[in-house]
Amino acid sequence: MASASRTGRRPGDSGSREAILGAARAAFAAGGYEGTSVRAVARAADVDAALVHHFYGTKHGLFLAALELPGDFTAALPALLEGDVEALGERLVTFFLGLIDAEATRGPLLALIQAAMTNEQAAELLRVFVTRQVISKIIAALDVPQPELRATLVGSQLVGLAIVRQVVRVAPLATAEATAVVAAVAPAVQRYLTGDLTQAATRG
Amino acid sequence: MASASRTGRRPGDSGSREAILGAARAAFAAGGYEGTSVRAVARAADVDAALVHHFYGTKHGLFLAALELPGDFTAALPALLEGDVEALGERLVTFFLGLIDAEATRGPLLALIQAAMTNEQAAELLRVFVTRQVISKIIAALDVPQPELRATLVGSQLVGLAIVRQVVRVAPLATAEATAVVAAVAPAVQRYLTGDLTQAATRG
Repeated sequence: MASASRTGRRPGDSGSREAILGAARAAFAAGGYEGTSVRAVARAADVDAALVHHFYGTKHGLFLAALELPGDFTAALPALLEGDVEALGERLVTFFLGLIDAEATRGPLLALIQAAMTNEQAAELLRVFVTRQVISKIIAALDVPQPELRATLVGSQLVGLAIVRQVVRVAPLATAEATAVVAAVAPAVQRYLTGDLTQAATRG
Repeated sequence: MASASRTGRRPGDSGSREAILGAARAAFAAGGYEGTSVRAVARAADVDAALVHHFYGTKHGLFLAALELPGDFTAALPALLEGDVEALGERLVTFFLGLIDAEATRGPLLALIQAAMTNEQAAELLRVFVTRQVISKIIAALDVPQPELRATLVGSQLVGLAIVRQVVRVAPLATAEATAVVAAVAPAVQRYLTGDLTQAATRG
């Protein structure tokens, strides 16, 4: 760690990671993803920028670390978006259900949702994440009108599913077999992704 | 208030309402709806049962007051469930969107969802509410298989909609016209209410 020793700081400094992540959360929430630089975060945390790169790689890695999301969450998205687009809803719901049903990955995801509901900084982080990480990838992968609205509709169903199944735990959605939940929810998500959203309801 | 004066308490006692509602929340959360009596709540609040009836009418009224939901929320449900069942999804989403988009009714509803996400007592109150007030009415109104699962699926979409649109406020779902949101979401809710939930996805 040449750069770290240049500043006289030890890279293992246990407070540095927390200082960096705290500064990153504040910076991303205030300036959004584009308006935030690794350099500015390092300055706010009073560390060398090279230490931030050492810990978190790119700005993207720093952002994900600030969110405290499971690392494989966004890594999996490109693979999910590949393949038969008509089965994307099923792949997405299956993947998301796997995350929220497994104890190891559920915690950070539910914590992020809960934080976003009570804390404006966390809400802005989540907005940036959805816009940058999810919507942009869906736009790139699908040739559909209104991709942004579709992504937020999918998000609304998945967030609601996580809450009813794993936070408030209302049976029988809380206790249903994963396969039954996928069968029930995937077609709704599929329609949000590729269906006709402007069709007026049949009557009324 | 003959019964109230029997206990020597004045019905206008400003602390009585809060004591009753606090005791009611604890009782409903611990014993569920069926396991809770107005008499037991009155005893826990150290007031006469007649005072509870005076303030809140029936046990049902006491329960809704304990939830702090907008009064018209459950009152509207029977009317929504009447009429063309194929347009029920549209009526339900239109009604719910009206609640969360209006400042006067949004607060209590969002507060209940937020409380249920961080507080187990509030979560249990919400579970009791959904089971007693919503699921039972849907079961009575619709002749469909798995009415409980359907009700919780509808709940998951509506809760997620409330969160993305009005709590975390992720655009464009947060800023879309109500008519566009209804057109997008109502068919998903309609399918949860009356569609085939067991159909395997087309491919996979």
